[in-house]
Amino acid sequence: MKDIAVVGIGLIKWGELWEKSFRDMCVEAALACLEDAGTDRVDAVTIGTMTTGIFVGQEHLDSIIPDYLGRRLTPAIRVESACSSGGMAVRGAFVEVASGLSDFVLAIGVEKMTDISGAEATYALATAADQENEAFHGVTFPGLYAMMARAHMHRYGTSRDQLAQVAVKNHHNGSLNTYAQFPFEVTLDAVKRSTMVADPLRLLDCSPITDGAAAVLLAPVEEARKLGKKPLVKITGVGNATDTIALAHRHDLLRLEAVEMATQRALGMAGKKIEDIDFAEVHDCFTIAEIMVLEAMGVVEPGRGGPATAEGMTALDGSFPVNPSGGLKSKGHPVGATGVAQICEAVTQLRGEAEKRQIPGARSALTQNMGGSGASCVVHILEVES
Amino acid sequence: MKDIAVVGIGLIKWGELWEKSFRDMCVEAALACLEDAGTDRVDAVTIGTMTTGIFVGQEHLDSIIPDYLGRRLTPAIRVESACSSGGMAVRGAFVEVASGLSDFVLAIGVEKMTDISGAEATYALATAADQENEAFHGVTFPGLYAMMARAHMHRYGTSRDQLAQVAVKNHHNGSLNTYAQFPFEVTLDAVKRSTMVADPLRLLDCSPITDGAAAVLLAPVEEARKLGKKPLVKITGVGNATDTIALAHRHDLLRLEAVEMATQRALGMAGKKIEDIDFAEVHDCFTIAEIMVLEAMGVVEPGRGGPATAEGMTALDGSFPVNPSGGLKSKGHPVGATGVAQICEAVTQLRGEAEKRQIPGARSALTQNMGGSGASCVVHILEVES
Repeated sequence: MKDIAVVGIGLIKWGELWEKSFRDMCVEAALACLEDAGTDRVDAVTIGTMTTGIFVGQEHLDSIIPDYLGRRLTPAIRVESACSSGGMAVRGAFVEVASGLSDFVLAIGVEKMTDISGAEATYALATAADQENEAFHGVTFPGLYAMMARAHMHRYGTSRDQLAQVAVKNHHNGSLNTYAQFPFEVTLDAVKRSTMVADPLRLLDCSPITDGAAAVLLAPVEEARKLGKKPLVKITGVGNATDTIALAHRHDLLRLEAVEMATQRALGMAGKKIEDIDFAEVHDCFTIAEIMVLEAMGVVEPGRGGPATAEGMTALDGSFPVNPSGGLKSKGHPVGATGVAQICEAVTQLRGEAEKRQIPGARSALTQNMGGSGASCVVHILEVES
Repeated sequence: MKDIAVVGIGLIKWGELWEKSFRDMCVEAALACLEDAGTDRVDAVTIGTMTTGIFVGQEHLDSIIPDYLGRRLTPAIRVESACSSGGMAVRGAFVEVASGLSDFVLAIGVEKMTDISGAEATYALATAADQENEAFHGVTFPGLYAMMARAHMHRYGTSRDQLAQVAVKNHHNGSLNTYAQFPFEVTLDAVKRSTMVADPLRLLDCSPITDGAAAVLLAPVEEARKLGKKPLVKITGVGNATDTIALAHRHDLLRLEAVEMATQRALGMAGKKIEDIDFAEVHDCFTIAEIMVLEAMGVVEPGRGGPATAEGMTALDGSFPVNPSGGLKSKGHPVGATGVAQICEAVTQLRGEAEKRQIPGARSALTQNMGGSGASCVVHILEVES
């Protein structure tokens, strides 16, 4: 298989962007990406977005995005994988380059979530759950993750403080990221006193509703070299997997088997073990999610995610920094954009351009993006060339 | 690039399938496909569907479909390209195999359209148009195609009878296809007297609202040979392209440039000219669409689509048979399934298994699937091994 590099990354400041449409956000992120890459060559476009049909009444993204980018006739592919739609757009671009059909492939992730009410957005997001076995009965994602959190506390003794520590850490990192929706610190006490959403998860345990877009440009390494940029960041591993969509159908409520499998596949392709990875961007849609993902990826043993977080292992200066960008919690979670933005953060770190949140000497990164209650997952391994 | 074969096809009878959910339809089509292939090996799944979020309140298809197929942990990719979602699922499977990431890839197309009212379905379909420049102003797809039809009649003298002849031909073909939703003949007079939908298009100029699914299994040719099936049908060309989503933004209302470009790309990859192709399955969502697609693909000169149809060129016994399956018009148009079913028909014909609608000696086929008012298009070239 071809060696493939990330030759450009593009982000916009996320938030409640009422003055920007999803088209505007895509164009802005894409232009930033091409500017960063130093080329305007785009052979194909992949677009990751969860449910623009419900959020803004617009499907057919593979037509409208190239159109508004001024790239009529360009082949395009729109993928959907709930909250891992962005990661799947990057995977789609990777596969497109690997197949030989295209060389320069632009992956864009986008979601425009604040044009409808919070209740409508909750309905829209719940289309990622099993309609017949979950949503029909009234459960939404805070409720599903709350059940996992309660079970985790029961089986492993994970504490309220350990959950809160995920939010405290990620907000600290996010306070150093100018693109973040909520770039400020939160205290342990503030998390524990925030409004209850679904017991035991409180407002500051939950990622927010966000408008945002992100873009990356992939190309074969030999083409990337011609652009003359250094250092070169390669995607050396890609893995994805799916699990039962309904939480109740899992063998074990506390095992994210799609995450386990996707991680193993990506690491296997890269010829690496989890111990070889310097840091990770992971899918902390809720605080409990980051803890369970650490366990599923094999960073810690099952049940050790909470204590490891409390001990500082995953902090910027810990032995395995997690979510240096601020994660979904602080950076925001425009669902289709999140997985693409994770790649942007990994590349920024590996290039040594992360300024105050830079992880010194980072050479390899893992990004983990998942959909629903872990019913789908896509993992990428990135490495900087020596 | 690898040589890739279609090793299995699976269809179900389409119609208003109120007793079947979209999950049931996918499973039924997939099982038929694996039965036909003589293997149950599936390394990855691609799913094409337009807007299950609106039709049935369910996104996250890449999780739910492998789940209901009993294939937990299988990597899956859901693509959306409005009415060409099915074709893009096949293209996705092709790229997946070509990349080397997977060998046996199952492409499933599905749409469940009759669980909501006709008015709601019209709204759902209109999300494939430009929300801000088209749908907001009240235009829906019959209206957009009616404008194209009227312009075509004005510029080229295309007649009411020529439009109707597309429906008459496709219903004749569909009357020979047991999987068709409306497997009966219609007369020229019946088309011309049917209820007006959007002048000049009448009810029998329009493809119907349909529930349905279809599946194909792709694999590298060397793997396909091990299954010991003959004759072997290969996909030798793939092409896709996009155009402005809004009809009003086109350079020419009567040129389907995405269809032109996708066709040229697919033929170029196969090393063929349109004259080398024995028959085609094309996207006759409205009668005018088939006429304009014939022109865009270069089968006839611009303006000659109507007369050529009236002269019998595209009939089963014509020089270039089009839509031997009955097309969208008679076979039905479950939007996400249509592009996959086109491949099923092409393979059936190339294997010589099309019974009463068999095109004698067919060796090469083209399938053309498009979204919106031609704003996206995907074309495949299939050939049977000598």
